[in-house]
Formats: sequence, structure tokens, C-alpha cells
Amino acid sequence: MPEQSENKIEKVVIVGSGPAGWTAAIYAARASLEPLVFAGRPKQVPSLVLPGGQLMMTTEVENYPGFPEGVTGPKMMAKFEQQAVRFGTRIQTDNGQNPDVSDPDDGHSFAYHDCTKVDLSQSPFTVWGENDVCVKAHTVIIATGATANWLGLENEQKLARSGGGVSACAVCDGALPVFRDKELAVVGGGDSAVEEASYLAKFASKVYMIHRRDELRASKIMQQRAMDNPKIEILWNKQVVDVLGDQMISGVRLSDTQSNEESELALGGLFMAIGHTPATAFLDGQLELDEKRYIKLADPYRSTTSVDGVFAAGDCVDSVYRQAITAAGMGCKSALDAEAWLANHGVE
Amino acid sequence: MPEQSENKIEKVVIVGSGPAGWTAAIYAARASLEPLVFAGRPKQVPSLVLPGGQLMMTTEVENYPGFPEGVTGPKMMAKFEQQAVRFGTRIQTDNGQNPDVSDPDDGHSFAYHDCTKVDLSQSPFTVWGENDVCVKAHTVIIATGATANWLGLENEQKLARSGGGVSACAVCDGALPVFRDKELAVVGGGDSAVEEASYLAKFASKVYMIHRRDELRASKIMQQRAMDNPKIEILWNKQVVDVLGDQMISGVRLSDTQSNEESELALGGLFMAIGHTPATAFLDGQLELDEKRYIKLADPYRSTTSVDGVFAAGDCVDSVYRQAITAAGMGCKSALDAEAWLANHGVE
Repeated sequence: MPEQSENKIEKVVIVGSGPAGWTAAIYAARASLEPLVFAGRPKQVPSLVLPGGQLMMTTEVENYPGFPEGVTGPKMMAKFEQQAVRFGTRIQTDNGQNPDVSDPDDGHSFAYHDCTKVDLSQSPFTVWGENDVCVKAHTVIIATGATANWLGLENEQKLARSGGGVSACAVCDGALPVFRDKELAVVGGGDSAVEEASYLAKFASKVYMIHRRDELRASKIMQQRAMDNPKIEILWNKQVVDVLGDQMISGVRLSDTQSNEESELALGGLFMAIGHTPATAFLDGQLELDEKRYIKLADPYRSTTSVDGVFAAGDCVDSVYRQAITAAGMGCKSALDAEAWLANHGVE
Repeated sequence: MPEQSENKIEKVVIVGSGPAGWTAAIYAARASLEPLVFAGRPKQVPSLVLPGGQLMMTTEVENYPGFPEGVTGPKMMAKFEQQAVRFGTRIQTDNGQNPDVSDPDDGHSFAYHDCTKVDLSQSPFTVWGENDVCVKAHTVIIATGATANWLGLENEQKLARSGGGVSACAVCDGALPVFRDKELAVVGGGDSAVEEASYLAKFASKVYMIHRRDELRASKIMQQRAMDNPKIEILWNKQVVDVLGDQMISGVRLSDTQSNEESELALGGLFMAIGHTPATAFLDGQLELDEKRYIKLADPYRSTTSVDGVFAAGDCVDSVYRQAITAAGMGCKSALDAEAWLANHGVE
């Protein structure tokens, strides 16, 4: 870590590096607070906490304002990061140096460190990272986002962990050779399910969307996109009750949600798109959460949490909107709130 | 207006065209709601409601995430607008055609229409524009922003209206030949005061910052910027009690806020940077406002207002953060809330 010493107390530590985390870093850095970011680290399947956040799993981002021709998720997050670093953001890494962020494809993100634990019970707070790094901080911004949900079937988990053709991220894994020209399926009926199905259709011979209801939750423009794609077929009122295959998935057993009739569907790959869980478990109950385990804001208009001096932003707070632009807006609020906290507490 | 007819009811009408308005338009358009935008129209000095919002008065925007090298306010807003139009946003104009937004400097914005009045007392709502245009709408998004404050002195207003060297927008007017190599002053002590002083220093021989207190409210990075600029001098504990000059400003009379001593300062131009007032007067009491006349959200986490089906976003709601990125985040929320409202009310 740059300029680390036993007695140093960081002004702002930011945990997370999606739109909320980097925006918090941009604003904190511009306020000369020299924020330190724990940006996360790619994990084993099926864990999917990625530096850059969920946008790293997206191809084209068309709705983040300012990019009329669209931009890829990784390129956009590289821009956020460059902007944060330009104003003095420090990133916790293996070698204590900020990575070169000029090329988003150079794999620098693998040098980032994850936050492993926090102690928010007394101020200054303590944040632990990999390699037993321990940092004290006057304010902490939690922007850890949310991760993909799974069906919870035994063989789903086994095949997911062994690279057996089951994934929660079509955009991460769908282009792998093992899925080329195969019949694949996406589980879910929301925007991201359609997006993942459309992405897979570029490589697959056919993509089924397996959906429990008789209508999609996806927005109209996304529904149209699914309907218009000749490679996509929607299987209505079906749920996956078993995943079949030994080393590699061979198919799924489906149950009709209306007739309870069971059937089998041969598949070369299965992709989950059934929602997300906020990455709040590492907080170990130290911040108040809501019933879905999202961080509860002390004032929903601001970024304050149940602990004074700890702020939260992005998808770990937001179960409703979950957009890059809303997360970024919250990231900005969290940095301005942290800046005001420091000024009010006389921390220079 | 494109496709206007007596009986048509718009799904979404958006009033305003800053970061909140265009972001609402991007999201509403992507949801196939074909939003209609009343983008506003440049007014006479000292009114400063501009299409594109307050960012049109900014030079370099460095803190909107996604532009690591910075971007000018007008260029950024042109990108927002292009993105909204790309997905099917319609803009109320003189000739019923969307303007060409490929060149932000072509003056197209002067063809935009302002909203003049709304009736939110019954659904569908009624929105009036220039030339007696009258539109019915199932949902309305208010994103009218906020406008600059003035001192309220008689000669300030007279000189401002007559182009006599008094302005509330340094970035709009500061580059005019009349101000070149003159001694100018900015009234205020916040970030925008420093920003306006720095901008004026490019053209002026000297820039005074006239501030009522003995410390700036500006952020540290901005304070440093003022201190480091050899052309900027801060006059502490001073307020302007009179503006001097007949056709053209000749100076101001200052009062010391501690000693009450009065003094005169010769000036070739005077610029206000003393806060903003939300553009909510046109609502005529039909939405609940707070004590500072900002629109009160029914749920501060969402964009709902005191009238069901009317949503609000951006600086007309926000007296705290006032950032492009926070306004854009709210604009996104308002469009998603309007989309949900329409779906819940069976409006196709």
C-alpha cells in the first residue's frame, strides 16, 4: 500500500469498485482526501465479486448518460477508474503501486486487493485486506454491490464449481469454446435474462429462456429484443428442478409451474439470471440491514448508515433501481457526506 | 410537435433538459415510452433557465464519472441529448422536428419550447407550452433545476437587465469583450464562486472575490485553486450594499460585516455566485414544496411527489448535492418510476 505506516489513519477507505465505488473515489480525491480503495479480486466460480463490479459482466452499456453510441462495461469502468486515479485515488494492490489503467484489457485488476473484514465498533474504524493488511480509517464507504443468485440445486453447484457448463454470468463465460454451437439455456425473465440470452445467441445454436411465469419481467425494449431473435425460444411456466450431467451438463429436468408435469431438456450449458444478493455478509452484522440484507440508510436521501462515519452507496443499498447511473449518484453522495463528516470532526 | 393530435395522451412528458431531464428521457425512451421533452428556452438576463441546464454555464466538467480527461458542460449535455434522441425521445420545438444535435454549437437549442404552465389537479395531467401548445400526459417528470440568486439591489437588477456589466453567470458572460482586462468581482464563497473567479481570471486583469465571512465555503481543492491564482484576491468579511454606475457598472459600495465600515471598490464587472433557487414557481402550489421551495419527495428514496403520477428529479428536488451525477441518478429513478406507474395503471 502506498505510504502505509503503523499510525496513519486514512481519511476515507472505499470498499468496492463498481460505479458507486469509483464515483465516491473521484469525488473524495477531488476533495483532496486521498481515498484508499479496496477494489476486490476475481474469485472462484460461483463467486463473482469482480473489480469494476457487475458492469464487467456486461457487453454494451447503452443507458449510462454521456455515451450516445454506447460503451462496453469494462471500458466504462476503466474510464471511471482512470478519473479516480487522476485526482489522487490510491488502490490497495500487491506491490503498493496503482495499476496502469490505460488499457482495460491488460489484466491489471488481478493485482487488486479484497477487503476481508471490518471493525466498525469504534472510531477510527479498522479495515482488513489480503496479506494481513490492516488499515485505520476515519470514514468508510461501503460500495460492495450485489452478486448473482443461484437455484441452489446440488448438481448445479457441483458443475458450476468444476467448470461443467453451469454459470451465473453468460457474458463472462458464454464465449468459451465449450459453449459454441450448443443449445444453451438462461434461467430468468428480467432484463438481464434477455440480455444474457441475446449475448449467448451470438455463439450458441439455440438459446432457451426458462421462465417460471407466463410473462417476462423484462422492459418492453428488451422483451422485443428476445422475441425478435430467431435463436431465442422462451419456455413459459417452467422451472428447473434438477441439473443433469456428470463432468459436463447434459440437460435439465423442468417442472411446469401450472400442470406440475415434468420434462427433460438437453443442453450444453446453463446460465442463471435470477437476481442478486447484496455483498453485505462481510459486515458481520455491524451495519443495520433490511430484510433482504441490503444496507439500511439512516436517511434514505443521504448515504448515512446505522454507524456514524460509515456511508453506503450502490447496489449493496439499492434493491430497486440497480443502475450504473443511480449507483454512481449514490457514490457521489457518499463521498460528499464523508467529506462533510471529516470537516465536522475537524479531520484535516 | 411530432404526431400531435387533439386526443393523444402522452405517456411521459418531461419538463427540463439538464442531466436529470435527459437521463429521464434516455430511460423512458429505452422503455419505448416515446417521452416528450419541454427543454426550455434561453431567457432575457437575468433569468437563466437554459436548455441543457446549469451545465451549459460551466466550462470544464471534471467530476462527472466516465470522462477522465474532463468534458465541457455543453458538449456533455449534447451527448445526453443525442443519447435520448437516439432511443426515440421527442423534443417540443418550433417546427415539430427534433433538432440536429450532432453539433452542440449550432444554436439549435433556441428552437426548443418552454413549458409555461401545468395542471396537475386531475389525471391525465395538462402541460402547456409556448404558442398555446397544450399536451395531455399520463405521467409528468419535473426536472426544471434551479436558477441563480441575486443580491436584490435596485441598480444590480437595472444593470443586469440592460447588459451593464452585472451578471449571475461568469461563464456565460465573462468572455465578452466588455470585461477584457478589467478589474472584476465575484460575490460568494462557495465552489462555484471560486470556479467563476478562476474563469474570469483568464480574461480580467484582476478578480476580487467578495465574501461575507472569514473563510470560504468552497471545497479544499477549489480553495487552493483560488489561493494559487495570482490574479484572484479575496476580500473577507465584506458585503455589497450598492452597485454603482449608470449605463455601465463603475464599482460597488462594500460594508465590512465586522466593523460596518463602508468602502468603494472600482470594478468593470460584477458576477453573482450566491446560490440558487429551485425553478418551481410555475407549479403554482400544485406540488408540495419544502421551506426553501424545493419539491418535496413523497418517498425520499424514490422520485414520487405529493401528486400520484407526477415525479421529480434533479436540482429542483436537491438543495444538498446539486451534482450532475446525482441529478442524472434521480432522472433515471423518475423514468423507471413513471414506467412502473404506467404498467401498474395498464397504460400501453
